[in-house]
Amino acid sequence: MHFASDNSGPAHPEVMESLLRANAGYAMPYGKSDLDAEAQGKLREVFEAPEAAVHFVATGTAANSIILATLCAPFETVFCSDVAHIHEDECNAPEFFSGGAKLTLVPHENGKITPEALRAVVSAEESRGVHGPQRGPVSITQASEKGTVYTLAEIRAISEVCREFGLPLHMDGARFANACARLGCTAAEMSWKSGVDALSFGGTKNGLMGVEAAVLFGPAKAWELELRRKRGAHLFSKNRYLSAQMLPYLSNDLWLHSAAKANERCAELTRGLSQIAGTRMAFQPEANILFAHLPRAVHKALHEAGAQYYLWSGELEGEDPREPLLARMVCDWSIPREKVAAFVDIARAADPG
Amino acid sequence: MHFASDNSGPAHPEVMESLLRANAGYAMPYGKSDLDAEAQGKLREVFEAPEAAVHFVATGTAANSIILATLCAPFETVFCSDVAHIHEDECNAPEFFSGGAKLTLVPHENGKITPEALRAVVSAEESRGVHGPQRGPVSITQASEKGTVYTLAEIRAISEVCREFGLPLHMDGARFANACARLGCTAAEMSWKSGVDALSFGGTKNGLMGVEAAVLFGPAKAWELELRRKRGAHLFSKNRYLSAQMLPYLSNDLWLHSAAKANERCAELTRGLSQIAGTRMAFQPEANILFAHLPRAVHKALHEAGAQYYLWSGELEGEDPREPLLARMVCDWSIPREKVAAFVDIARAADPG
Amino acid sequence: MHFASDNSGPAHPEVMESLLRANAGYAMPYGKSDLDAEAQGKLREVFEAPEAAVHFVATGTAANSIILATLCAPFETVFCSDVAHIHEDECNAPEFFSGGAKLTLVPHENGKITPEALRAVVSAEESRGVHGPQRGPVSITQASEKGTVYTLAEIRAISEVCREFGLPLHMDGARFANACARLGCTAAEMSWKSGVDALSFGGTKNGLMGVEAAVLFGPAKAWELELRRKRGAHLFSKNRYLSAQMLPYLSNDLWLHSAAKANERCAELTRGLSQIAGTRMAFQPEANILFAHLPRAVHKALHEAGAQYYLWSGELEGEDPREPLLARMVCDWSIPREKVAAFVDIARAADPG
Amino acid sequence: MHFASDNSGPAHPEVMESLLRANAGYAMPYGKSDLDAEAQGKLREVFEAPEAAVHFVATGTAANSIILATLCAPFETVFCSDVAHIHEDECNAPEFFSGGAKLTLVPHENGKITPEALRAVVSAEESRGVHGPQRGPVSITQASEKGTVYTLAEIRAISEVCREFGLPLHMDGARFANACARLGCTAAEMSWKSGVDALSFGGTKNGLMGVEAAVLFGPAKAWELELRRKRGAHLFSKNRYLSAQMLPYLSNDLWLHSAAKANERCAELTRGLSQIAGTRMAFQPEANILFAHLPRAVHKALHEAGAQYYLWSGELEGEDPREPLLARMVCDWSIPREKVAAFVDIARAADPG
Repeated sequence: MHFASDNSGPAHPEVMESLLRANAGYAMPYGKSDLDAEAQGKLREVFEAPEAAVHFVATGTAANSIILATLCAPFETVFCSDVAHIHEDECNAPEFFSGGAKLTLVPHENGKITPEALRAVVSAEESRGVHGPQRGPVSITQASEKGTVYTLAEIRAISEVCREFGLPLHMDGARFANACARLGCTAAEMSWKSGVDALSFGGTKNGLMGVEAAVLFGPAKAWELELRRKRGAHLFSKNRYLSAQMLPYLSNDLWLHSAAKANERCAELTRGLSQIAGTRMAFQPEANILFAHLPRAVHKALHEAGAQYYLWSGELEGEDPREPLLARMVCDWSIPREKVAAFVDIARAADPG
Repeated sequence: MHFASDNSGPAHPEVMESLLRANAGYAMPYGKSDLDAEAQGKLREVFEAPEAAVHFVATGTAANSIILATLCAPFETVFCSDVAHIHEDECNAPEFFSGGAKLTLVPHENGKITPEALRAVVSAEESRGVHGPQRGPVSITQASEKGTVYTLAEIRAISEVCREFGLPLHMDGARFANACARLGCTAAEMSWKSGVDALSFGGTKNGLMGVEAAVLFGPAKAWELELRRKRGAHLFSKNRYLSAQMLPYLSNDLWLHSAAKANERCAELTRGLSQIAGTRMAFQPEANILFAHLPRAVHKALHEAGAQYYLWSGELEGEDPREPLLARMVCDWSIPREKVAAFVDIARAADPG
Repeated sequence: MHFASDNSGPAHPEVMESLLRANAGYAMPYGKSDLDAEAQGKLREVFEAPEAAVHFVATGTAANSIILATLCAPFETVFCSDVAHIHEDECNAPEFFSGGAKLTLVPHENGKITPEALRAVVSAEESRGVHGPQRGPVSITQASEKGTVYTLAEIRAISEVCREFGLPLHMDGARFANACARLGCTAAEMSWKSGVDALSFGGTKNGLMGVEAAVLFGPAKAWELELRRKRGAHLFSKNRYLSAQMLPYLSNDLWLHSAAKANERCAELTRGLSQIAGTRMAFQPEANILFAHLPRAVHKALHEAGAQYYLWSGELEGEDPREPLLARMVCDWSIPREKVAAFVDIARAADPG
Repeated sequence: MHFASDNSGPAHPEVMESLLRANAGYAMPYGKSDLDAEAQGKLREVFEAPEAAVHFVATGTAANSIILATLCAPFETVFCSDVAHIHEDECNAPEFFSGGAKLTLVPHENGKITPEALRAVVSAEESRGVHGPQRGPVSITQASEKGTVYTLAEIRAISEVCREFGLPLHMDGARFANACARLGCTAAEMSWKSGVDALSFGGTKNGLMGVEAAVLFGPAKAWELELRRKRGAHLFSKNRYLSAQMLPYLSNDLWLHSAAKANERCAELTRGLSQIAGTRMAFQPEANILFAHLPRAVHKALHEAGAQYYLWSGELEGEDPREPLLARMVCDWSIPREKVAAFVDIARAADPG
């Protein structure tokens, strides 16, 4: 019952098979092999973006930081939500890669920023001329860190604010697949067709060992992106092993099917927990992440049964025992339906309500 | 006949098997799994360094840059050879990760720096007080970029210069294994026992898909190293896949056996080419890299036979046809003896002498 | 009637005379002249801090950024108020000089941060281990950007939070003199005796042409501070001209007397405006800055009379005419009492109430 | 007898008078006063460059670093001589301001780089694609650090190499005035008319207290230059005091007359020392700097007479007494002719030859 994170599970068998196949003979290094070209081409095809600059890196932080550094001058500021991964979980990597840019926080609603809040914050940054940071890119996370999903209309509305102020729009798509599966739209619709200029396209949380794609939909800064990847120490000599993961992932909709499975498990978990009297969802789960307020007895029972997930706030000991705990649970593509059911059963049995 | 680089060949079968084994079930992310601890422990054991800080990253540039940034303040300078990988092939990554430190070049002899040259350059940096950069770490490459190997006495002599000036000594060990196999010494002898304070321990060029270890032999800056790895976007969520490569590599001397094979192939290649009248070694090959001046006819024949290697200077067309070309050939652990023999046969047959 | 800023007025005549005196003959450059030593010594004497590292720079942004870079590793975050000058008005200079550190904002109350708010924000930054930025220095502004002044007890309470978490405390003292004059305490009491570790000691806003002192009360990082000043391009070759300003400033309490005059003018302005029906102070003015909500008719009359100050929000045209405007007025040491009286007279005459 | 540096002497009386005049009444801060506009306009007029971006900073390191950061991406390298001030004397400031760019050294001849040497070094930087740094700006120092002066033809020849490779040309003109006076050409001829794109125009070494101009002759990056100045902590609130120095300096050719005087004193010094048997010029002095090999007895006598200059190599004690010492002498605009004569007399009297 492992719900700690979608980076705890195994890689997909098709990915491992592809790796084994790629491990034969010799190949040009540094992304110049046929396999590299094939995987990049496949991503362009899936996104209907034949001109996109596409480069593979090994961590989401790398994808986000290298893209943002390419889009953001060091005297500018990135607009993002106050719970954005780039703000909370990357140990200043965006500030580092950009050479000292700032992050300006937009208060989130349900894990997402609204066009209104964005416009207010961007507007407020305007009056200081040379004294304040200049306005730089806007970054949104899809699916969000709170497990919610921007609708296409919401993305478009945000991109309109960006266009109004002449700012590029970046999407942190560590869980792009989960959001796309949820919306039932195409990859293009959820990205450049809705005004997204640059994308961190995640694979690691959805069945790869460790590959993300840094994508610029326009070709203007393609070479700079490559240089920043190299300078950022993310140009792999044996890049073919990244491509060997990304290629099957993008083929036959594996990325979408895997994400859909994770979303389904999360929906089952949501339904199960929602029927428990003392349990309450903190956000409406729309992808594969669930935040729930749990009665302490429920958490205790789950914990003793070996279930794994993070407490987001509260502690089992030493606090008001009537206060519920806030737990985050994440479903991986590989979680079996039975594990979800078993988890819910334990929770239900322990419910004091 | 693939001699372009030791990053063109496959990963070792034992490494792939270990990856498959690691791909079962769930594991704590971000380097907190049992497998991670085991692989780190194994490296400490191999190096007889129970207190060493050990972290895995995916590229040699990352290992070098993160270590150097940990050792070098931004107002200092790194002393390295004028053909060092950190100077020539990392697109300013050391300058980037360190926040703007300088690299001060020491003229190489046969790819290596001498204690005398180092002392002269370090001394010359002394007279400018606050105006010049301050002296920072010394970095040497073992085996060197020219295929030569520092003896233990040479390393110790350099470390004495470091100690004299109070400077830490870093070893870029992208081909540490090849050098260690050549010298027939222990890993500890070739590193901390000879005065090396920090090591980039390579795996990628010797049979891994993409793993290097960043090692600080003293524990003082262990936490800073971790933070700089994270900030440098090289903390893998699924770190277990790096550990799964490093563990078999370090077990049963696989790292040494693989390197020894590569060295042997290079020695065979050296012997074969040396018997060809017009061919001359540019440096004495001591590990798995060979630089040779080739007659144009020899290069032409090899090229037409599909042999792959880089020309370091000269071009086939448009130059004085009597001038030899300078070629670099690198042997991978996986190169079969027969391929080397076939290569030499072609070269010999084409020799105009 | 110039109330736009305390950086609009002239330098004090004693300062100009000192400059003229200093402009005779030859002096060692780069801060090595007798005059430099004398001015540094004078500052140490005034602060009763014989071991303090003291260096002069030309802008407040330089003093803040060089100090913060010395105190804050690039993977750390600086805690400051959400209206701090270092956050709003330095175009990312602290992020730049620190190599990419973050600023974490503490909500202000009346321009100041409270120990409670600081503790809450610092505590919240604790749970992410290597993923979040590490806790770095705390920076407070005295007098604050809103014209309020921390009491000694308030500074001490903040420094206790710092000590609890092991964080250094920086004071942006661009208007240190105004605050010190207000509190009637010694420079030492308002700084290191209350737990302040580092100080940007302002002169430019209080009668100098352009000199601030970067002060570390402990000697541990004195040399690093010098190197960061040089690397930050703020080591003046003709440093004697900075010292020639600072020396008379610190002599015979000129700094305090000038600040006291500015404070008095501001108090007169406050009293005058407070008697006008529609006018309301946004913050309680305690030094030489005043924020007032003005009826539009009052602003219009002042504007037409040529009075200069900044509107902080609202515009004369195109808004609800019943809404008051928010204006900031700053008194310089040189503002004559008559100008304040004239200003108040115009405002009173225009008051619609 | 103060020949240590041209930053040891006083500011010109006209400059001080201008400062006193500027110190009346109130002025808009941050470079928005009438005086600021006047001084910027004057510089554009002197350079016949009505579109130039012109900003004043307080140190030469600031001018160089802010300009180079504007011209050089962090993944590029600056080409400069191996004795360039930006390489040797700025404590990594160019690396810092540029976000980690590299400096690639071109061997100097008589303190200057030749078009041939530049072309060779720039060409050698070409073969590494994404692995090496990309080619960035070329920077030359006029007059050079060795006291020599590029002819207009030499500057043009270098700018042709720049144009060939598409690289911008920066001139470190800390002693621009001395070189211009030497050549007897116009400021425009020695800069943009000869292909210079950006200029650090020095004032501090030629009679100002501390002002340099950062000049971009093309307007394309004017706003970025301003932002980098602010972020680099060199936007003065009381900028009028910089302008008040620069305005008289540029009026009535004061800058040229002062430099010509310094050059004349240096020529007298050169003539005088050249007549001494054991003394030999290390470089041909063409501006106001002189490097001379001095017999030890001569140095001893000068030293005992209180003459001030730097020994560039050698020490009075503990070396082979027959070896001459290398001394650098610099003439300031303010050095009286009699002091030069007295200096020469002492030297001549002590000459053992």
